[in-house]
This record gives sequence, C-alpha cells and structure tokens, in this order.
Amino acid sequence: MMKFARVTIVMGSQSDWETMKAATKPLEELGIEFEAGIVSAHRTPQRLVEFASNAHKNGTKVIIAGAGGAAHLPGMIASETLVPVIGVPVASRHLKGMDSLLSIVQMPRGIPVATMAIGEAGAMNAGLMAAQMLAIEDEALRQRLQEYRQKQTDNVPFEIVK
Amino acid sequence: MMKFARVTIVMGSQSDWETMKAATKPLEELGIEFEAGIVSAHRTPQRLVEFASNAHKNGTKVIIAGAGGAAHLPGMIASETLVPVIGVPVASRHLKGMDSLLSIVQMPRGIPVATMAIGEAGAMNAGLMAAQMLAIEDEALRQRLQEYRQKQTDNVPFEIVK
Amino acid sequence: MMKFARVTIVMGSQSDWETMKAATKPLEELGIEFEAGIVSAHRTPQRLVEFASNAHKNGTKVIIAGAGGAAHLPGMIASETLVPVIGVPVASRHLKGMDSLLSIVQMPRGIPVATMAIGEAGAMNAGLMAAQMLAIEDEALRQRLQEYRQKQTDNVPFEIVK
Amino acid sequence: MMKFARVTIVMGSQSDWETMKAATKPLEELGIEFEAGIVSAHRTPQRLVEFASNAHKNGTKVIIAGAGGAAHLPGMIASETLVPVIGVPVASRHLKGMDSLLSIVQMPRGIPVATMAIGEAGAMNAGLMAAQMLAIEDEALRQRLQEYRQKQTDNVPFEIVK
Amino acid sequence: MMKFARVTIVMGSQSDWETMKAATKPLEELGIEFEAGIVSAHRTPQRLVEFASNAHKNGTKVIIAGAGGAAHLPGMIASETLVPVIGVPVASRHLKGMDSLLSIVQMPRGIPVATMAIGEAGAMNAGLMAAQMLAIEDEALRQRLQEYRQKQTDNVPFEIVK
Amino acid sequence: MMKFARVTIVMGSQSDWETMKAATKPLEELGIEFEAGIVSAHRTPQRLVEFASNAHKNGTKVIIAGAGGAAHLPGMIASETLVPVIGVPVASRHLKGMDSLLSIVQMPRGIPVATMAIGEAGAMNAGLMAAQMLAIEDEALRQRLQEYRQKQTDNVPFEIVK
Amino acid sequence: MMKFARVTIVMGSQSDWETMKAATKPLEELGIEFEAGIVSAHRTPQRLVEFASNAHKNGTKVIIAGAGGAAHLPGMIASETLVPVIGVPVASRHLKGMDSLLSIVQMPRGIPVATMAIGEAGAMNAGLMAAQMLAIEDEALRQRLQEYRQKQTDNVPFEIVK
Amino acid sequence: MMKFARVTIVMGSQSDWETMKAATKPLEELGIEFEAGIVSAHRTPQRLVEFASNAHKNGTKVIIAGAGGAAHLPGMIASETLVPVIGVPVASRHLKGMDSLLSIVQMPRGIPVATMAIGEAGAMNAGLMAAQMLAIEDEALRQRLQEYRQKQTDNVPFEIVK
Repeated sequence: MMKFARVTIVMGSQSDWETMKAATKPLEELGIEFEAGIVSAHRTPQRLVEFASNAHKNGTKVIIAGAGGAAHLPGMIASETLVPVIGVPVASRHLKGMDSLLSIVQMPRGIPVATMAIGEAGAMNAGLMAAQMLAIEDEALRQRLQEYRQKQTDNVPFEIVK
Repeated sequence: MMKFARVTIVMGSQSDWETMKAATKPLEELGIEFEAGIVSAHRTPQRLVEFASNAHKNGTKVIIAGAGGAAHLPGMIASETLVPVIGVPVASRHLKGMDSLLSIVQMPRGIPVATMAIGEAGAMNAGLMAAQMLAIEDEALRQRLQEYRQKQTDNVPFEIVK
Repeated sequence: MMKFARVTIVMGSQSDWETMKAATKPLEELGIEFEAGIVSAHRTPQRLVEFASNAHKNGTKVIIAGAGGAAHLPGMIASETLVPVIGVPVASRHLKGMDSLLSIVQMPRGIPVATMAIGEAGAMNAGLMAAQMLAIEDEALRQRLQEYRQKQTDNVPFEIVK
Repeated sequence: MMKFARVTIVMGSQSDWETMKAATKPLEELGIEFEAGIVSAHRTPQRLVEFASNAHKNGTKVIIAGAGGAAHLPGMIASETLVPVIGVPVASRHLKGMDSLLSIVQMPRGIPVATMAIGEAGAMNAGLMAAQMLAIEDEALRQRLQEYRQKQTDNVPFEIVK
Repeated sequence: MMKFARVTIVMGSQSDWETMKAATKPLEELGIEFEAGIVSAHRTPQRLVEFASNAHKNGTKVIIAGAGGAAHLPGMIASETLVPVIGVPVASRHLKGMDSLLSIVQMPRGIPVATMAIGEAGAMNAGLMAAQMLAIEDEALRQRLQEYRQKQTDNVPFEIVK
Repeated sequence: MMKFARVTIVMGSQSDWETMKAATKPLEELGIEFEAGIVSAHRTPQRLVEFASNAHKNGTKVIIAGAGGAAHLPGMIASETLVPVIGVPVASRHLKGMDSLLSIVQMPRGIPVATMAIGEAGAMNAGLMAAQMLAIEDEALRQRLQEYRQKQTDNVPFEIVK
Repeated sequence: MMKFARVTIVMGSQSDWETMKAATKPLEELGIEFEAGIVSAHRTPQRLVEFASNAHKNGTKVIIAGAGGAAHLPGMIASETLVPVIGVPVASRHLKGMDSLLSIVQMPRGIPVATMAIGEAGAMNAGLMAAQMLAIEDEALRQRLQEYRQKQTDNVPFEIVK
Repeated sequence: MMKFARVTIVMGSQSDWETMKAATKPLEELGIEFEAGIVSAHRTPQRLVEFASNAHKNGTKVIIAGAGGAAHLPGMIASETLVPVIGVPVASRHLKGMDSLLSIVQMPRGIPVATMAIGEAGAMNAGLMAAQMLAIEDEALRQRLQEYRQKQTDNVPFEIVK
C-alpha cells in the first residue's frame, strides 16, 4: 500500500529509482520526512487516482513525481490534487529525456507542474524545491536550508585541480 | 453527459475541434456512426476515467483522442480501456505540435496509442484508421473503404495546374 | 517466400530484429498466431508491393512494420493495402530514431499508419495494439487481454527496491 | 524602486508583460496580493541582486520570474534567495521559446527553478502554482483554490460547438 | 498519363507546385527540356512504380522529386530506378520541413537520394544540380552553366541598398 | 599534392576517413577509378580553392566531400566548380551530425550540394550516387550498376535469423 | 569594390540587411567608423577570399559577418584572416535560424568565429562586441561604452506599463 | 581567492576542466599569460559579481567562461563587465550541450557573448579567439598567431592514412 509523508516521492517504475533517489539526499540532510513508492500513470491508473486524491488528507505537503518518455505521471497527479507537484523528467533511452521534459512541462492552463531539469540534477533539485516550499512557513527549516546553501557555496573551490 | 458511438472522438478542449473535425469526414463518407465530445485529461480527470472505463460497455469499438502540448489524454484513456485508442497530436502554439507528438507517441511498454501525424492530416487519418480497424471483421465496410481509396487514387491528376 | 499469419510482422533488415522481436512477446502470450519476415522498402520494393497487396487475401488482419532512418516501409505498405499497419520507428544510429519517427508518423491525409514509440517499447506495444485491434470482434481474445493487463497492473509493486 | 508583495512577479522587459500578465489572473481571482516589476538579468544585474536578496525580508513568499531567449533571470534570482522561484519561459522570436525553456529548466544541482510551460499558459499556471505553494499552510486559500478548480472543471462542457 | 523528358519533375500533390516550380527556372534558362507531373507515393503507389520503372527507357536522365511530411516519394522512386533522383523537401505545415528533410535524406545504404535544401531554394537548386549532372558529358551545357553562374556572380552587388 | 581521378573524394580531416572509406566500396566494386585526399575548408582554404578550381580540368567528373560540425567543405567546393558535389555529413561528437547535415544541405539558391545521409550510410550512398551520375552517359557502367543493385536485392533474405 | 573601415560588416545578400543594419546602431552611437557590403560565400567565393585576405592590411580591426541557412560566410572569412570575425546567424525562412546558428557556431578547432544570437538581437550585439574588442586597447572608447551601458541600465524602468 | 591574468578563464565546476583545459593550449603556445579558476553562477553568485566587476581593474583583457546546461555564467559575467567574454558551451549529460549552447548564445540585445562551439573544439577556439582579440593591437602576437596558423595549415597532410 502507498505510504505518505510530508514529502511523498513517486515514480513510474523501479528503473526510475536510479535517477529519483537523488531527490532524497537533500531531504535527508535537511531532516524532512519523506516516503517513496511506485505509481505508474499507465499501468496503475487507479493507484494514481487513489494516491493523488488521498495525498492531502494523509498529510503530504509536497509531491515529487518522476517519469520518462510520454511522462504523464506528474501532470495527472496534479490534476487530482492541490498539493504542489514537482515533476522530474527522467532521461529516456532514445530521446534522452527531451520527450520526458516536454510531456511534463508543457501543461495546459489550469494545472501547473513545477518542472525540474532532466535526470539526476533535476531529481536532486526537486528535493531542494520541496524544502523551499515547506520553508515558506517553517522558519527552522529555512535556517537549515540557509546553512545547506552556505555549505554548498563554501564548497566551491577557487582552484582547479589540474 | 458523454455520448458514445461505434467510434467515439474526444478532445481536450473546444479549440481542438478545428483540427479534430477532420476526423469526422471519412467516418461520414464511410457511413460509420460516431459521437464527439470534450474530455480534458487535466481539467476533468474524473470524466476521463468515467469515459474510458465505460466506452466498451457502451458499444465503442474505437476511440479517437486529440490533444495538444503535454497531451496526456490519449495515453490516459488507453490506460483505462482495451478499446484501441488512436491519438492525434494537435499543433501547439509555440512548439507546433512537437510536444504534443512526443507526449502521445512515446508511450511506455504496456499501453499503446496508435499515433497519427500532427494536425488536420493526422485527424483525418484517425478517421480512416478507425475505419480500417473496424473493417478487419466488417467486409461491407471494407468494400466501402476500397471504393473510398480508389476514388482517392483516381482523384490524383497527372497534370499540374500551373 | 513471404509467410503470412493473422498478424504479420515485417522489418527492413535483420538488424531491426533486435528491436522488433519485442513485438512477438505479447502475441505469444496472448496466443495470437504471427509470422515475421524481412521486407526492405528500398532494397526490395517489388517484394513490398507483393507483400502488401497479398496480405489481406492471405488472411493477415494486422501488419506490424518496423524500420529506421528514412523509414518508408510502414507508409508504403499502408499505401498498398487496407489492412491496418502499425509502424515501429527503430532507433537510428545517429539521430536516435527521431528521423524514423517523423518518417513514419507524419503521413499525409489519406494513408494512416498507427505509429508506436521509438524502439523496443514501441515494438512491444505494436504487438499489444495488434491484439487490441483483433479483440474488437474477438471476445475471447479480449478476455485474455484483460487478464494480461490485470497481471501487468498487479506486477507493479508499491515498494521501491533501494 | 522595486515593490514587493506576498507574490512578486518580475520579468526581463516590458515586452514580456503581454505574456506575464496571465500570471496575475489567478492571483487576483484567489485574492492573493502581488506586485509586478521589471528586472533584467543582463541590463540591470545589480537590481537583480538587490531584488533577490531583499525579497524574503520584504515579505515575498513566492517569486515568479519570466524571461525569453538566454533566459537567466529565474535561475540567477534563485541563486540569491531561498524564496521559491517559479520560472516562465517567454516565447522567443525565432526559436519560439525552446531556448527560453532550456535556459530556465536545465538548472544544475543545488539551485532549483520551478519551470512552467512556454508562454501564456505557463504564466497563468505560475500564478496557480504560487497559490498552491502558499496554500500548503493556508487552509482558507486552499478552500478558494478548491472552488477555483471546481469551477474550472465545471466549465468544461461535454458538447462541442460545431 | 505521365510525360517524360530529359529531366522529369514529380511531386506529391498540386500544392507542392508552388515550391517546385522554382526547379523549372534554371532548366528553362539553360535550355534543358523537362516535364512535370504529379505522382503521390501514398495515394498513387502504382503510378509511382510505373513512373520510376519507365523513366529510363523513356529517356529521362535525371529525376527531381519533391514531397513534404513523411516524404517517401524521392526514396521510393530511387528504389525503382538507376536514374539519379534529386529530392526536394517541401516545407510542411507544422514542422516546417524538418520531417520532410529527414524523410528524404536519411536513406539507408544502397539507395541514394541527392537531397537539396528545404523549400524553394532547394527546388531551384534541384534544377541546377540536374543541369550539372547532365553537363558531365555535355560540354555545350557546361558552357551555358558557366555563363549562368558567371551572371549569378556578377549580379551580386558590392553595395547594400539602405 | 592533390590527386584527381574520375571521382575525387575529399574530407576535412584524417578522422573523417573512418566514415568516408565507405564511399570507396561501391566505387571499387563498380570499377570506377577514384582518389581520396584531405582538404580542410578552414585549415587549408587555399587548397580548397585550388582543388575545386582544378578538379574539372584534371578530369574529375564527380566530387564527394565529407565534413562534420560547421561543415563548409562541400558547399565551398561547389561554389568554385561546376562538377557536381555530393556532400556527406560526418557525425559530429556532440550533436551527432545534425549540425553537419544542416550545414551541408541548407545551401542557398544558386549553389547546390547533393546531400546524403549522416555517417557511413551516407558515405556509401555517395559512392553509389557518383556511379549513377556517371552512368547517365555510360551504358556499360549502368549495366554494372544494375547487377550491383540486383545482387543487393537478392541478398535480402525473407527469413529472420532469430 | 569592397570598402574597408575599422569595423567592416559583410553579409551574404541584400535581404540580410534588414537584420544586419542593427549592427550599425551601436557603432554609430559609439563613434566607431564602419563600412558594410555584400560578400556571398557561395555566389562570390573569390570576393570572399579577396575581402578576407585584404581586410587587415586595409585597416579593418574587426569583421562582422551575417548569413543564413548553410551559413558559411563567417567561418570561411575566419579561415582567411586573423582579424577577429563576429558571426551573426540570420533567421532562415523554414528552420528559423537554427541551421544558420549551427553552421556558424560549430566551427572545428583552429578557426574560431565569435557567434551571436539569431537575428536582430545578435546583429546589434555584434556591433557591441566589436566595440568591446576595440576597447581592449582604446580607453576613450571604453569610456563611451561604459556610458552607453549605463544609459542602457538606466533606461530599464521599474514599473510595467499595464 | 580569484587570480587574474591577461586572459582569465573561469568555469562553473571542476568537472568542466576536462573540456576547458583545451583553451589553455593555444594560450600557452602563443605565450599569453592566463589564469583559470572556478566561478559558479548559481552556487557562488557573489563570487561571480566580484570576479566580473574586478576583472578589468586587475588587468584582464579577455574573459573565457565555460558552463553547461542552463549555462548562465558567460552571460552574467558579460552583464557586469565590458571586458569581452568568450562563452564555451560545455556538453551536458543528457542534451549534449544543445541546452548549454542556447543558454549562452541567445543573449538579448545589449549584452553580447562571443560564443564558441560545444565542447573541446569550442574551448580550444576560445583560446585562439582571445589571442586574435589581443592581437588587434599587439603586432608581435599577431606574428606568432600567423606562424601558429601557418603551422596548422602545413600540418594538414594531403594523403589519408588508410
């Protein structure tokens, strides 16, 4: 059965995990509780409806959804809930995620998906964007995010290792 | 309320009709009963589920679905029914239907959508492909299709009008 | 010599088999008789005409055609028969199947090709779409398809293997 | 001087307003206070830094940033603040917004931008996404959003006007 | 009935003529006899075979073939004759000829098509390339071509009209 | 020093040879004398001018030119000679030859380049197209080409090796 | 005859002037002497060589070259001179300048072209980039550039005209 | 701390060095003093401002900036200084540098970036373009460049190693 948390991460299949696990890194570092599970828009459409329509009442504040190819998962979840959905285009085998990106970002007026970059960078940023959304009304989290980002800045060396 | 027919045509919004009406021409000429209505994957997701899960029992043999941009309609219908779904990528304003095409055609394994060309040519061909599917077991329709195609061939002049 | 079956699969060259064999999986599982052979639009144009114009009278109900690059095979077969043609864009070496996809899907009005996704996913779905077309008038096959799809749904786990 | 509000909308130039004003519609309807102004990443880089680094302390909870071409505005604002930034790719003259989209969405790990669709649809959805972010901890707004969406659903007719 | 000449120009439909007539300009100026007619790969496949397989014996030395979208005409003619085929990608409505170009140029090994630029420039150059092919063994034509090109060079002014 | 033959093959650098050697196969099989050498449009522009303007008087009837990236070689040779130029887009490292293709095929009116497919298939076809051009007035070569093509057709098996 | 100045602007044809005249605006405002003329890489290759190889000795310090489609002008000039060449991709009719951009920017190692954006924005920036190059060793010009840029910054209003 | 030289090379991260080190080759060979360091537009925006606004007064005459994906580094540096900025699009993981290229080259009017090819070729050419800019007023460097280029030309063999 689907598990919910403050941030709930779903993806179309097990193979997306290799990309999507990057979303969990910043959540862990920032101490944000999350769950991750599989919801396939096409193979489990009922699970999708059930997941999306129950997310809010189960306490989910932000949903992260990753999918590849004709990636309908983020947009279809967004159509069933008001919880903000962050979409991560997983790189596809042949078109390298260009299909995933356009399928996620080009949403029609009325149902937005907060789209991230293709692949791991996008998944990692999805975790951070979820944290930034939650930090709107969570000053303690905002502090931790500031430290996270400061560390990120401090970790950029001036010197190139040649 | 949704109306069903042997071929049921759905599209994401009224504005898609300008493209999708081309699908009705061959159906009319071939004497195939059809209905057309609006189902938005994103603005009316419940209608989508209801439509798709009732199409078969209401006698629909083929579904034609047109949508533009992050075009999830054909694929999501296909995930809810075994009635064959023909997808028509409606040209989008900025990317000219490349987004619509990739969102419809790049379906993952398990849920096929029979994708047509972008725009009116694709819509018209959706009507013909529906007829060809029905003609598999309808010899009379097959005859009419043959005449239709013969006429199509006969109507190609040799001479260019300069 | 060309062999025909209820579903006949053709492809432009031996090298396409690695992709196209995925089309045979669902056909086998669903107990649909099929044959597969090589027809090159460019190297064997007469074979193409002969194949396409004899497919119907030899009992073929659905044709699956896979090709890559300037992929003319599906469209040219479709121009010679009323048997529905499902086109599979085989990934090309340099453009990764974008050329194959556009060459297959962008058919002009009058001659439709039911286009699937690029590569193996598309080939597998071609097998399923063929089954769905046949199931329009074959209730027993429809039952088997329903079980197939149910199994597909059941096989999507909730839990990610981390 | 820059004006701030709960949602602050910025864009690279006056000409972006034709697209970006669509973001204000849902904010107005939902009763969310906003301001809109011009910040050019390239022509006013100091204004960008000043704007971004003061947004939080001036009470801005969500930033919407629209830009076209080599669209650096959303990403550069995001690098200077922890307030969530929603990016809107404004359609460019020659590449129709594909350049704007890639410049906004393909952010490297560490600095996310919540990217919307190209053009007006994306701008309108930016307004909605801002509202959804704010509704995470604002139950009254959530109610209004629910009504807004219900109305949106109710306004999709079944019948096509032929 | 098809008419043949030293250079025979064919195109998929009357609407291609607006583009393809540019091919006749250099042929006329260089005094090369030509005919032009309509052959649709998809709507008149038998005419295509008949045309291509009779072109050589009817005295055609070079074929120019223009088509748009899933443009199969040049490649399919090339598969039926050894007369060199020059392909002209006619601009398509939505994808602006990128589909036409890839469908014509990306021919598999064994059957070449001499592809020109998209649209009128390509059509005009097709006429010139036909002339250059014929001039390989026609010294008089080569002289005329040289004059033609010299005039072309002479007609490029130094000064811009401001 | 440049060597000329009935067909002269040039390419931008040694690394293009891996692709371009495919052009020599059909020439060898068909008994057409050829030479191959390096001419870089950008690193040896004078060699380019010298090569192109001397090709005709040294007996070259057809030029094959391969280049990658901003591939100016075929078009610039074509601007300096009336000998037909066949252009082969060599696959580039990052854009996979899409840049090479557009740089070669999109020639402005007045200077045509007969463009082949990206990569080895295009190189091989360049050899065949050269032969077809020469066969316009060389009946013996035409015979050999017919045998070559017949063999090509005969070598396409019906059966797939599974 | 070609005229040279401190900055010399060339373009492939009169029709490019509509785009390229934007390059003259900043040069005029900054008091940098320039000339503009037509050099076609393909129709006047000798003029190109003559122009490029004489530019330096005639006092040209920076060359601006605009061209569209298979845009070889900037790269070929760059191959014949050490004067820095700024390339402007003029928007092409069908591919909107994507072909022009790739043909200009994707230069192989050894011959750089300083490429600007597609169209008027790129042309205007070419004028500014020329000025910035000249200002490396011209302090007075640097001062004028600084004022120019300050004015540019000052002219960006805060307020949107609604 | 940032180090400056006559040519200063910056890049978004250590991983860009593999590409960007190619820029140092021609600088070394031509005896042009340079420094290289890391400046991330997104992770170290203050360092970017500090670097760009101090480059001129620290003696930098030309800046080379390499970045990948949503590559804002070159354009943002250019917005803060009048020192000419040469942008190098580093190939991105999924889109192969097409995103990097568009993010760098499509600058709006007012702030030019001299864009090079994607990847190593572009980096190497950035070094050369920097040298050509400096040679505008440095005759000795111009001499060395001429020798460099002559050697480059001399090193292109006529013969292919088969």
